[in-house]
Amino acid sequence: MTSQSTECERRVRGLRAQLIQQGLDGFIIPHSDEYQNEYLPASAERLAWITGFTGSAGTAVVLQDHAAVFVDGRYVLQVRQQVDLRIFEPRHVSEVTVNDWLSSVLKPGDKLGYDPWLHTPKEVRQLRQACARVKAELIPCRANPVDAIWIDRPPVPRALVVPYSTAYAGKSSEDKRKELAQKLKDDRIDVAVLTTPDSIAWLLNIRGGDVSHTPLPLGFACLENDESATLFIESQKVSETLRDHLGPSVVVASIEEFGAALKKIGGTRRRVLCDPQRTASSVFDQLEQAGAEIIEGEDPCVLPKACKNPVEIAGTREAHKRDGAAVCEFLSWLALEAPKGKITELDAQAYLDSRRQRQALWKDLSFPTISACGANGAIVHYRATAETNRLLEPNTLYLVDSGGQYLDGTTDITRTVAIGTPTSEQRACYTRVLKGHIALATVTFPKGTTGTQLDTLARQPLWEVGLDYDHGTGHGVGCYLGVHEGPQRISKTPSTVALETGMIVSNEPGYYRAGAFGIRLENLIVVVPARSSGVEGRNWFAFETLTVAPFDRNLMDLSLLTSREIDWVNAYHEMVRETIVPLVDLPTQSWLRDATEPLR
Amino acid sequence: MTSQSTECERRVRGLRAQLIQQGLDGFIIPHSDEYQNEYLPASAERLAWITGFTGSAGTAVVLQDHAAVFVDGRYVLQVRQQVDLRIFEPRHVSEVTVNDWLSSVLKPGDKLGYDPWLHTPKEVRQLRQACARVKAELIPCRANPVDAIWIDRPPVPRALVVPYSTAYAGKSSEDKRKELAQKLKDDRIDVAVLTTPDSIAWLLNIRGGDVSHTPLPLGFACLENDESATLFIESQKVSETLRDHLGPSVVVASIEEFGAALKKIGGTRRRVLCDPQRTASSVFDQLEQAGAEIIEGEDPCVLPKACKNPVEIAGTREAHKRDGAAVCEFLSWLALEAPKGKITELDAQAYLDSRRQRQALWKDLSFPTISACGANGAIVHYRATAETNRLLEPNTLYLVDSGGQYLDGTTDITRTVAIGTPTSEQRACYTRVLKGHIALATVTFPKGTTGTQLDTLARQPLWEVGLDYDHGTGHGVGCYLGVHEGPQRISKTPSTVALETGMIVSNEPGYYRAGAFGIRLENLIVVVPARSSGVEGRNWFAFETLTVAPFDRNLMDLSLLTSREIDWVNAYHEMVRETIVPLVDLPTQSWLRDATEPLR
Repeated sequence: MTSQSTECERRVRGLRAQLIQQGLDGFIIPHSDEYQNEYLPASAERLAWITGFTGSAGTAVVLQDHAAVFVDGRYVLQVRQQVDLRIFEPRHVSEVTVNDWLSSVLKPGDKLGYDPWLHTPKEVRQLRQACARVKAELIPCRANPVDAIWIDRPPVPRALVVPYSTAYAGKSSEDKRKELAQKLKDDRIDVAVLTTPDSIAWLLNIRGGDVSHTPLPLGFACLENDESATLFIESQKVSETLRDHLGPSVVVASIEEFGAALKKIGGTRRRVLCDPQRTASSVFDQLEQAGAEIIEGEDPCVLPKACKNPVEIAGTREAHKRDGAAVCEFLSWLALEAPKGKITELDAQAYLDSRRQRQALWKDLSFPTISACGANGAIVHYRATAETNRLLEPNTLYLVDSGGQYLDGTTDITRTVAIGTPTSEQRACYTRVLKGHIALATVTFPKGTTGTQLDTLARQPLWEVGLDYDHGTGHGVGCYLGVHEGPQRISKTPSTVALETGMIVSNEPGYYRAGAFGIRLENLIVVVPARSSGVEGRNWFAFETLTVAPFDRNLMDLSLLTSREIDWVNAYHEMVRETIVPLVDLPTQSWLRDATEPLR
Repeated sequence: MTSQSTECERRVRGLRAQLIQQGLDGFIIPHSDEYQNEYLPASAERLAWITGFTGSAGTAVVLQDHAAVFVDGRYVLQVRQQVDLRIFEPRHVSEVTVNDWLSSVLKPGDKLGYDPWLHTPKEVRQLRQACARVKAELIPCRANPVDAIWIDRPPVPRALVVPYSTAYAGKSSEDKRKELAQKLKDDRIDVAVLTTPDSIAWLLNIRGGDVSHTPLPLGFACLENDESATLFIESQKVSETLRDHLGPSVVVASIEEFGAALKKIGGTRRRVLCDPQRTASSVFDQLEQAGAEIIEGEDPCVLPKACKNPVEIAGTREAHKRDGAAVCEFLSWLALEAPKGKITELDAQAYLDSRRQRQALWKDLSFPTISACGANGAIVHYRATAETNRLLEPNTLYLVDSGGQYLDGTTDITRTVAIGTPTSEQRACYTRVLKGHIALATVTFPKGTTGTQLDTLARQPLWEVGLDYDHGTGHGVGCYLGVHEGPQRISKTPSTVALETGMIVSNEPGYYRAGAFGIRLENLIVVVPARSSGVEGRNWFAFETLTVAPFDRNLMDLSLLTSREIDWVNAYHEMVRETIVPLVDLPTQSWLRDATEPLR
């Protein structure tokens, strides 16, 4: 850690010098890029470069005499291990928000810089209020001061963009554009500016390779209400095949032309739809300066993308079968090898990843596999490294959270297994997490219900004994796109987004004992019409589970399960056995038969 | 209904003529007064006067060629019975909001009037947007056009304001003002403008009698950060006793002086706290015009008022015992008399009300008793009248929702009882409502949890079979104040207000079969620290039930109850028996012993 610390000190010292040059007293470094997107290319990993913290969400603020990193519950342990605590104060956002912290440390007259490409207008508004409260000033930076000192910054990625076949997408880009254009016309909007790469990928039926683990083509787009569109993207990423696929109604322009296009929209005073929660403040600034009439509203691709069509759902089901086969091969191998006491977290991770890679239509992992034993399992987004790598020792819990990007769908699964003999407390905790998982998997709910309303069902068995977990219960998942996707989610956070049929979400309650063990049980589930509709003729929904892999029977305390819960486990395991046995080798088949034996 | 319709036609015709005189194309009539308060004096019942609809929430819009009344799920049946459907189109706000409806019917150039004393700035902002969307104009009216044609408008109420003893309030007004003044100082605020009568009643430890069933003193107040205050109130309502009670730091001014006071706040450019969700737009307009620096924020009384202190909770517990005695006397009488087939809804209501009135410290009902049999029970906020009055016939369900205002606390209880033999379906529905009630009564939850998160627990047993209810599960309740009180609630609606210890809410799931029967089971519950704190040392809360009256055992289908639910019913009934037997006459004692016999 010593060399790391020195490095960090050097970088922060460099940034502070740079800030003085730019006339700033501080700078805010979010985990984001100009696409306001969770998945960043290496060239945009400014937060990791300056702090050492590699989580998927967080914000740093560097002032001349203070520096802090703000993370959510998933990262409270990790951040303390990764950042130099002599330089950065780690803070949990539920204890103090970035904005409240700024109001407490900034002094009147202080100038805080921000990069308008890395924040939404809403974030900027809040930052400005936080500064105003203490009479400090918020200053947009034309040049990002981190970039100015980041000598060895990796190049911007330029992966080829490829067509995504309608055989997987289920609907042609023409049809998608036609439907959205009609909506724009209905709302008397001329053009929608799209800056979210997965929206653009969905709308144009294209995929890219600019970031790890998610097939995003980084770029911008404009959708006109006459069904035509312009794609702004690095020209090196465009092939003739792609041009053919896009067809004559989609103009391909270089990314440098985006600014001129915004100016033109403004110059002709057109009504432009722009998403204040997903689009960089800089885009709004440019449109406003040019004189456009901005209509703030949700990116029109977000909701139709979230509600998967039957082809996407069928594809995702198939992807989950192959993914389940890979996971079962891994779990079967683990059951044989782990007791020998020679497998490490990294060994297990490598084996699981190799099983996935062999599957048909496999393209990538959907995120770096979390392979965590014992106390490492309590670090919610743990990633094993040479330094942290642990042996899978007897009498510990092993947590593995992983997923694949297949051409026909995206998977995400977590299983927790006992290495050796679990304690009765571990079994009790595991069983309560499982009860929450089952409660969510089996709920029937009326149209209009949000994920906030359902979140509690997954927590209640833990709440009963004073336990909880500090992360959401479920995130949306794309179809060969982001493994995290909005707008739907299942979490404590107030939401106004109703769950709709075709939405895929994860069902992943957990429990974490810091320094001891972690438990998480995750399946993906899709919203479907409830089998028996409500007597009042309203619309009723339920979930269908997509993931196909057994839960560890050794960790279930049957005395804590109701007979209905036991029936659910047995029915699920029977489905797993029947689905997976034809897809795997003999040793896995044999393990699977044991692993899916009915309870009781 | 014929004469009523003619009356309505005449009033709407009069209003339309008045609108033309004022140069308006339409006018919006909310259910509110200048205090933005659910409980209106007769002089402010403009919505009821113009439409005939008497519910506690709703909005009418009268245009020259359209008129509509918007109500929530509680009132969808009632509104159709009360308004002249040839004139007013009844709309459910969950199908179309007032604002969306306005955007669909207003034409470019239309002028829609509103009374700035009857809307919050937030409502005005939304109305203005709705108008702007279709290029219509929103016009504040100096004089309310309804008042101009309302010849026989009742006079503004002038009930004497009386001190509320610290023996019941638990904290002196001096102490309350001291604490709030410190918070104002911390936020560098000079003065808070209070326009919510129950906030003022709480802060100054006073009660009034200006509206039915809630001891509100209608008036305004300003709280200075030096702990002094001014109360603006009709001078006829103020006695020497009250002046003595208020003490030298509280100036009493006439209500007419409020405008001048706002002007003065502006003239001295003071920082003034004003609640945009609870204060009339007119107050904001006046402050702005005068040049005040308005800090938008929650009325500082709201949260401390909601979190009852130990004296208030103890008082409320005592009030519930006496209230429970009254309810048990009624239920015992009902068990004897109803089978004779001669009792009507109004008879039952009169008997119940008379039992309550005999209790010590009784001051008023907390709302008009809902006494509803058979199909009337499905009208959520039913009120029996000579026209609708039904006999309590054999083999029907009878629903009674009632409460009392006692000097030491406010009560609200709903019971549903079988007259004769219930059907097995009625028993199944009742039992599912009861299961939801028990789920909420017994939940343990971590600090930070909102009512939205808990609401689902009360609905899930109904959701399982495709049933639901179209109202919230719980509302906040005051202490000898409003029977509906914010900011806490338990409902589907997204909320950011965490439940805190001392908050009282109702627990009232229900089920309604239109045209057939209604079921609602309501107790008041208070947030208390959980008996066993969570192992992680966080704060854990639970509910303690305050209401003391048995649930109808004849309506419970034991095959649908878990053993834990049966245990809860038995323990609750044991508590009821032990609490109430010493307080009631011999026949009620004997009935109570039967009614609280353990299940199984």
